[in-house]
Amino acid sequence: MISKSQIKLITSLQQKKYRNKTGLFIAEGRKIISDLLVANLQLHSLFATEDASNLSNQYVEVNARELQKISSLTTANTMLAIFHIPKMISAKTNGLTVVLDAVRDPGNLGTIIRLCDWFGVHQLVCSLDTVDCFNPKVVQATMGSIARVQISYTDILRYIKEAELPVYAAVMDGTSVYEASLKSDAILVMGNEANGISQPIQKLIEEKVTIPYFGNPDTAESLNVATATGILLNEFRRITGTSN
Amino acid sequence: MISKSQIKLITSLQQKKYRNKTGLFIAEGRKIISDLLVANLQLHSLFATEDASNLSNQYVEVNARELQKISSLTTANTMLAIFHIPKMISAKTNGLTVVLDAVRDPGNLGTIIRLCDWFGVHQLVCSLDTVDCFNPKVVQATMGSIARVQISYTDILRYIKEAELPVYAAVMDGTSVYEASLKSDAILVMGNEANGISQPIQKLIEEKVTIPYFGNPDTAESLNVATATGILLNEFRRITGTSN
Repeated sequence: MISKSQIKLITSLQQKKYRNKTGLFIAEGRKIISDLLVANLQLHSLFATEDASNLSNQYVEVNARELQKISSLTTANTMLAIFHIPKMISAKTNGLTVVLDAVRDPGNLGTIIRLCDWFGVHQLVCSLDTVDCFNPKVVQATMGSIARVQISYTDILRYIKEAELPVYAAVMDGTSVYEASLKSDAILVMGNEANGISQPIQKLIEEKVTIPYFGNPDTAESLNVATATGILLNEFRRITGTSN
Repeated sequence: MISKSQIKLITSLQQKKYRNKTGLFIAEGRKIISDLLVANLQLHSLFATEDASNLSNQYVEVNARELQKISSLTTANTMLAIFHIPKMISAKTNGLTVVLDAVRDPGNLGTIIRLCDWFGVHQLVCSLDTVDCFNPKVVQATMGSIARVQISYTDILRYIKEAELPVYAAVMDGTSVYEASLKSDAILVMGNEANGISQPIQKLIEEKVTIPYFGNPDTAESLNVATATGILLNEFRRITGTSN
């Protein structure tokens, strides 16, 4: 049985304003909830239509109709949890870091978090106008990877200025990534879906790389930012070969 | 002004059954419609809220409310066109061909078509249970690339049996793609979102490749099929370097 105040809280967490105010976010489905618990995120409450005693001994039993009411999914899963947003971790000075400049689409951010997890990128730094990673659509799109990637939001212009690692950026007219000299300790900047990387940030970057285009030369296409991130992370890993 | 029968036709084309019956499909937005015309697809009719005389001199002027009524988008664009589904082209015996085994998500198929366009893969062969490429969600997700990639639906088991090119497949436990010997004339098979490549097809394939995993060894993750296709096509191109 869910109380009215719990329903109100859960519904409010669809909005960034209330996530910031309460320091809470929502995750749905056994796999994601379990991954977040394994990563030591602090559970606030858990609502389930099936036995969830191996996840928490204080979960609330609900029926399918109640769960659908609080779910942000078209078809609710078997459980929904409220978690505390983890504290942001300080910048790393080694390994590979991905920086996002105004990525707006929740699905793209979710896919990028999943890629960071796959390629062992432990740190993802987002500009303040990048979509919130605790947006329910992002949490679900990460398939649990959000538990294993450190994500922070900051003034990325300043972050890049102060960085002591080589900074690479994905642009349309840079050096072919096949010919670029990629380092294992580095920062990779990816830009907004429509406008790419903003001018003030582009000016700071020496190593501009491009994924070569093999299509019809008469058409000017672009790659989706999440797909491009996957291809570039793979390039970094195939060349440097380091897993952390 | 749109007639009732036109509204009925357009609405019916949301469904595969009626697309097959009529041989027609829908595209929305100036860029995609323009790309399809450049690729010589045959226009059936065009409805626009703005001047579209450079696309067709027989377009129907509509107002925003009428366009929204026939649009499958949450916010309608400025134009919607009905096109004739092009004739399928026979199999190629050179270059790179991508084969899809039961890819079900329209967004994934759209991204894969866009990737084929980027990497100069002119032929995409889909199993009969792959989502229809003329599904409105796929057409829109391709951003116009659907005009430049030859797509056919067939019995892929037979297609692969009869293929005279080396056949590669993306699996979870194959040879690292960094070490595989990739050919410029080849077939790359990608599998279903949840189940990968079906067993009967896996049995036919000698060259099983995997994108190396650099993440936490305690977790078993997978990559989205569209992202994995992008990474693998990039690997084929970086090694063979051929654009057709």
